[in-house]
Formats: sequence, C-alpha cells, structure tokens
Amino acid sequence: MSPSSDVSDEIPTADEVVTVEDVEAARERLADVVHRTPLDGSTTFAERSGAAAVGLKLENVQRTGSFKIRGAYNAMAQLSAEARERGVVAASAGNHAQGVALAGGLLDIDATIVVPEVTPAAKIDATRGYGAEVVVEGGDYERSYEHALELADEEELAFVHPFDDEHVIAGQGTVGLELFEQDPDVDTVLVSIGGGGLISGIATAAKAHDPSIRVVGVQPEGAAHAKPSLVGDEIHVLSNVDTVAEGIADARLLEKTFAVVRERVDDVVSVSDADIAVATALLAERAKTVAEAAGAAPVAALLSGAVDVEGERVAAVVSGGNANLTDHAELCRVGLERIGRYAEARLELARWPTVLGDVTDVVEERGAELDTLERARRTAADDLNRTPVRVGVEGSGPDHLRDALAALDALDGVSVVRNSLDTET
Amino acid sequence: MSPSSDVSDEIPTADEVVTVEDVEAARERLADVVHRTPLDGSTTFAERSGAAAVGLKLENVQRTGSFKIRGAYNAMAQLSAEARERGVVAASAGNHAQGVALAGGLLDIDATIVVPEVTPAAKIDATRGYGAEVVVEGGDYERSYEHALELADEEELAFVHPFDDEHVIAGQGTVGLELFEQDPDVDTVLVSIGGGGLISGIATAAKAHDPSIRVVGVQPEGAAHAKPSLVGDEIHVLSNVDTVAEGIADARLLEKTFAVVRERVDDVVSVSDADIAVATALLAERAKTVAEAAGAAPVAALLSGAVDVEGERVAAVVSGGNANLTDHAELCRVGLERIGRYAEARLELARWPTVLGDVTDVVEERGAELDTLERARRTAADDLNRTPVRVGVEGSGPDHLRDALAALDALDGVSVVRNSLDTET
Repeated sequence: MSPSSDVSDEIPTADEVVTVEDVEAARERLADVVHRTPLDGSTTFAERSGAAAVGLKLENVQRTGSFKIRGAYNAMAQLSAEARERGVVAASAGNHAQGVALAGGLLDIDATIVVPEVTPAAKIDATRGYGAEVVVEGGDYERSYEHALELADEEELAFVHPFDDEHVIAGQGTVGLELFEQDPDVDTVLVSIGGGGLISGIATAAKAHDPSIRVVGVQPEGAAHAKPSLVGDEIHVLSNVDTVAEGIADARLLEKTFAVVRERVDDVVSVSDADIAVATALLAERAKTVAEAAGAAPVAALLSGAVDVEGERVAAVVSGGNANLTDHAELCRVGLERIGRYAEARLELARWPTVLGDVTDVVEERGAELDTLERARRTAADDLNRTPVRVGVEGSGPDHLRDALAALDALDGVSVVRNSLDTET
Repeated sequence: MSPSSDVSDEIPTADEVVTVEDVEAARERLADVVHRTPLDGSTTFAERSGAAAVGLKLENVQRTGSFKIRGAYNAMAQLSAEARERGVVAASAGNHAQGVALAGGLLDIDATIVVPEVTPAAKIDATRGYGAEVVVEGGDYERSYEHALELADEEELAFVHPFDDEHVIAGQGTVGLELFEQDPDVDTVLVSIGGGGLISGIATAAKAHDPSIRVVGVQPEGAAHAKPSLVGDEIHVLSNVDTVAEGIADARLLEKTFAVVRERVDDVVSVSDADIAVATALLAERAKTVAEAAGAAPVAALLSGAVDVEGERVAAVVSGGNANLTDHAELCRVGLERIGRYAEARLELARWPTVLGDVTDVVEERGAELDTLERARRTAADDLNRTPVRVGVEGSGPDHLRDALAALDALDGVSVVRNSLDTET
C-alpha cells in the first residue's frame, strides 16, 4: 500500500470491521445466553418529546445489568480451545468487568479482571460473584488497563477489549437486531457513545435493516469526542473528561469504532449532566426503571430537545442500570430540582418554634410536600432576632412550588430569604 | 332462605362472586387496553430464597403504574349506556384513582375522584391528567369515601369500588391469566393483600389453571387482617393500621373478597416494614425496577423467609410502582442499612480537620464508600477536646463495614463512639 497523507486512508472500512452477518452470527451464539430485553413503550416520553412513539430498549435488565455481556460473550466464545484453556484478562471497574466475568463462568474460561484501587468492595464482590479473579492494580483506569495488557503478555491471556474489537462490536449489535424485530418501523435510534462499541454494533444492524433509519449517538458534554471526530473525520482525543455518566466517560473512539461510526452513524449530540439527571428521575418515576447515568443519556437527548424527533418513531437504548442506589437517589433528586418539582428554601422565623405549625399547615394546604425541615446555622447575614430554617419541598412543578413558597412568605413571622428555584447555582 | 346463626352462611360462595369465566371475559375486554406485563426471571431472588425459580410479575409497569386499571376498566366497561352517560365516582388518593381516571378517558365516561385533603398536588395532577374531575373532600380516606357515596347517590353516578366488586375482582384476575401463560408450571404465587381484590382475582385464575397452585397472600405486620380472618373464618377488622405500605394499609376484607379469599387463598403471611424496605432496595438494585412498598411486599415475604419456597417455582406480583422518588430513596437507604450495606457512625476526632485525610484514606483503602461526612453537634457526653463527626459509609455487607469502622477506630486521633450496625434503634 502506498503511503498517503490522508488520515482516513489508515482507517479500515466499516465492512472490514463488522458486517450484519457478523452480528447475526453473534445472535446465534448468544441465543441461550442473554435476555431478549423488552422494548417498553412510553407515552410520557413520546408526549414530552413530540415523537409519535418512544420505545425504551431496556438493557438495564440484561444479565449483569448492562449490554456488555453480549460483546464479551461473543468475543470469548470465538477463542481457540488453547486460548480458552489459558484464560482471558480485562480491565474495568464497571459493566465490562461483570460481562467478562459472567461470560467466563458460562464458557468455563478463567477470567482475570484488573480494577483500579478506588473500586468499591461491592463492585469487586459482584465481579467475584460471577467467578472471576479480581486484581486490584493502578491508581486510575489507564494504569489498570496497562496492567491487564502486561498480564495478557506475560501469562498469554487473551485480552478482552471493552469496545475496540470486531467480535465485541458484533455482540453489542444484537441489541439492534432485537430492536428492529420489536419495532421494524423505527425512524430514529438513540444510543450512548463511550468508546463506541454499542453504537457501532447497533448502527451496523440498523443500516442493514433499513438504510434510512437514523442512528444518533449521545454523549455527555463533558466527554463529547465523537462529534468532533465526525466533523474532522479523524479521531478526536479529549485531554480531559468530566461527567456524572461514568459508563461513557471516555476520551476517544479507537480505530475500529471510529471506522464504523463515521460510515454508519448519522449524527452525534451532547447532553448536560443536568439533562441526564432529569432523564434518570423521569425514567424512575414514569418508566419505573433504574438506569445508570450513561444509560439515561439517550432519554436526556430526547427530553432536552438535543435531537428533533417530531412525529417520529424513536427507540432509546437504556444501556445499563448498575447504579449505586445512593448515587441514583441523589441524581433523581437533582433531576426533580432541575424541573422545579423539588426546591430547597431558607426561611427566617420570628417565633421559633411556635410558627412551625403554621409552616406545615400552609405547605399542606397548598398540596406541596414537606420533605425536610431543619434548623440552619445562623450566619452574620441573618437577623439575630430570627431563627433560620432550611426546608425541602416537593410539588408538581415550579409554579406550584413558587406558589407554596409565596404563601409561606406571606405568613406572619415567616420570611423566605432564598430558594433554589430562583437562585443561580 | 331460613335464618341461621352460622356467620359464614351470610357470606356468598366464591363462585357466586366470581368465576374464571368472568376473568376470561374481563381479559377480552382488556385485550387492547392494558399491557401484558412481563414476568421477569430473577436469579438473585431465587438464590436468596432457595426457590428453584422466581418470576416477578411487573404490574408496576402497567398503564397508570399499577394493576388497578384492569379492574376499574372491566367494571366501567360493563355499565349500561345510561350509567355511562351519567358518569362514575370513586374515592382514592392512590392507584385506584388513576385507574378509574384512565378508564373513564378510554371509555368516554366522566369520572369524578374524591381525594382526601392531604393528597399531594402531584397526585391530583396525575389524576386530572387522565381527564378525571378531582374533588378534594375529607380529612381522611374514610370521609372521602363517604363523600363519594353521597355524590353517587345525589348525582346518580355509578360508584366504582376499589376492590369489593365482582367486575373489579375479575379484572384484577387477568394478572393471573397472563402469569399462568407465562409460566404454566408455577408452584406458588405471592400477592399483596389490602382489601383483597387483586388476590381474589388471581386466586380464581390460579385454582382454575391448576388447583394445586399455592396462592399466598402477603400483608404488612401493621395491617395484617386477612390471616385472622382465615383462622376465625369471619372478617377480622383492625382498629388501627400502621405501615409504610400505603397501598395495602387496609383494615379489613369486605364480603366479596372474604368470600373468595377463604375458599381460594391457601395462606397469608406477614412481613415487617423493614422487610419491605430491604425488598424495595433489592428490587431497585438487582431487578432495576421501582416498586412502591405495597408492590415490594411479596418479594419481602420471599426474602424474609416468611414463606417456605425451597425448590419451588415462585411468582411474586409486584403490584405497583407509584412511589414518590424521595420516599423510595429513603426506603432503599433504610433497606440497605438493614442488611448492613450502609451504616452511619459517630466519630470523635482529636485533630480537626487534619485527621480527615486519614479518615478518607482508610475508608477508601478498605473498599468502602464515604457517602456523607459532616461535623456533628457536640453534646455534654462528648469530650470537649474532640470534634464529633457523623459519617455514612457503604460497603458490601456488615462484616465489611465493621472492618472499615474498626480500621477507622484504630487510627491515631480517631474514635468510633457509635455506629448504626451495632446500635439497637
């Protein structure tokens, strides 16, 4: 091959990486292994986004709590007998770890997972629970990744890449095959992008099913490398990533995923962490489903208007649900606060504690709910003859909560000195 | 009919109330109206309970977020043309309200819902959102119920009872028909009991499918009226109910549900509110599903050992998911605390704030997660030369957290003076 200055010449074609036949073959391998996850229709999300219909492809109820088992199993099932005998190694503190661990258990392949030192014991236990050996090594993921490569080299273990592998991509693509069976007429599919494995697989299935299906990637603003990669037609590398969506906090695509994304993905949009919080809250409240932040990102794109889906049939892939419950609750609370369903306010009370009865009466009369009430620390800005109190209230929306807070402020002996609805944070 | 002193003579037979043919007819009426909800297999819950298999019948993802739409629609669809023209009335601050409201919208029947004064605006909005008229009347549910009966009488509206109605029972029974199609070999079905409508319907379907299926009712300890009703063979009325599971906080069965329950329900067990909290947390963490407390009760029975399911195929009906997210988060946190996955502790620090770095290092080294850390209010019991601090930590279980707290206590300048794992509350 002659040298060329055109960078895209160095990138393989999408077909050289993965074809729909590869995805179909993966599906056969996975038939008795993974759940065919539901495509759950959501009237609420359709109404809020202007779409004709919205389906949520719930990979959060997949085995191990995310789609990652599909790719890991498909890759590991194709190892030679000798390679299986020697075992595999991977680096991950998250969903890929559990996918490789379970696939190892199912295929009777020893799996070693390298995790960074900060990994919570609960996640390590979950990975060990699937039968994998866990090695804690490295202050961050990059160092764990390097260590996994070293182990692969030293102990002749097969390295299972989290995304930049044709078999992994083909396995993730089975999400798409299921989806287009469940709704053959879908117009737009929304998929999170971290390293790009899931969207590469789904886009491959989509374009084979119907080239007019629009495949849109979704990234958090703090890890938005794919759009500039498409625009510049070369892999864009972020020097820094910063997002609540850990599962897709990647700095770049790699060669194979870039090759597929540039040919088969129509567009990439980004969403803020606040958009993700709102989507996480509404997924829990309306769809009764627990999504991790990375899994809620496509719904965030739908609800924030980052992508125009007016009148379309839309599928949003909820890619995972492995959220720590405390973090999930915090994200939901922030999401409700962003849409004015929850507010915190600082009150100053002239008559502590006798006026508290009036406070609770007014909140209840207005149909709001008093979530918290606590005496606050007095600051130099506070009137020394008033008692500062912090309250958290829930209601049906910002107008309702402003109405309730105005009623509190109108009470004799109560002033609302600050509230989170009208404060820039 | 001759008078009799035997109380059970006054109760109709189960067949006089509802037959499986009624349930099958209901299913035809509901075919295009309700979702056929998934029966979601759970390896985790099977392992933890000793069952051979556990399926979760997810009525929390039913339209309106609970099974109640089934019964309401089935009853309202059978009203005469004149009755439909006049409209219906119901009393409820919860799932029945939304079921009647949506059924009214679908059948083009005006629906009036009477709710108690304490009902949050968000719930009223949801009910209005389905097109119902909401009347706020009564300091408690009983008064709202009476007012609804008065409206029914004055305005000739059909009163839609939340459970003591043969058509409502038949509608709820369609949950069972679906379930036995989804798993024809189920041995035991666990169903919450509030007023008994859901279990009456499901038990009717169960005994027709296979008389050997065991139907077990589940009640919270604070509203456990059905077991004494079965034992005494007469309706037992509680003078007081007290449970976190609002959706099943009923004081009694009524005639029709008692008639069915006494013939077709095999046993009733009870669970504590703490058991329900644990089940709610594990449903969110493992099954990625948001259940309201009443909906989590059957899973609580499974996990607490209240019912012996060793080696059986079990189905647990998750009847609803209409939980306020803040309340749900609180219930999950308490659930995790009960199983030793979360703990709060009070520390006394010799060197504030310099020792804080050591505290965070030790927690991280042990693989635990520091959820909260705040300076606490000093009490007379505290050493004036120490700074009290409150921490919340998460881990993989009680042994892990005790180990992390012991490591904190062993730090120079840190004493753990109290922790929630070893404190009776």
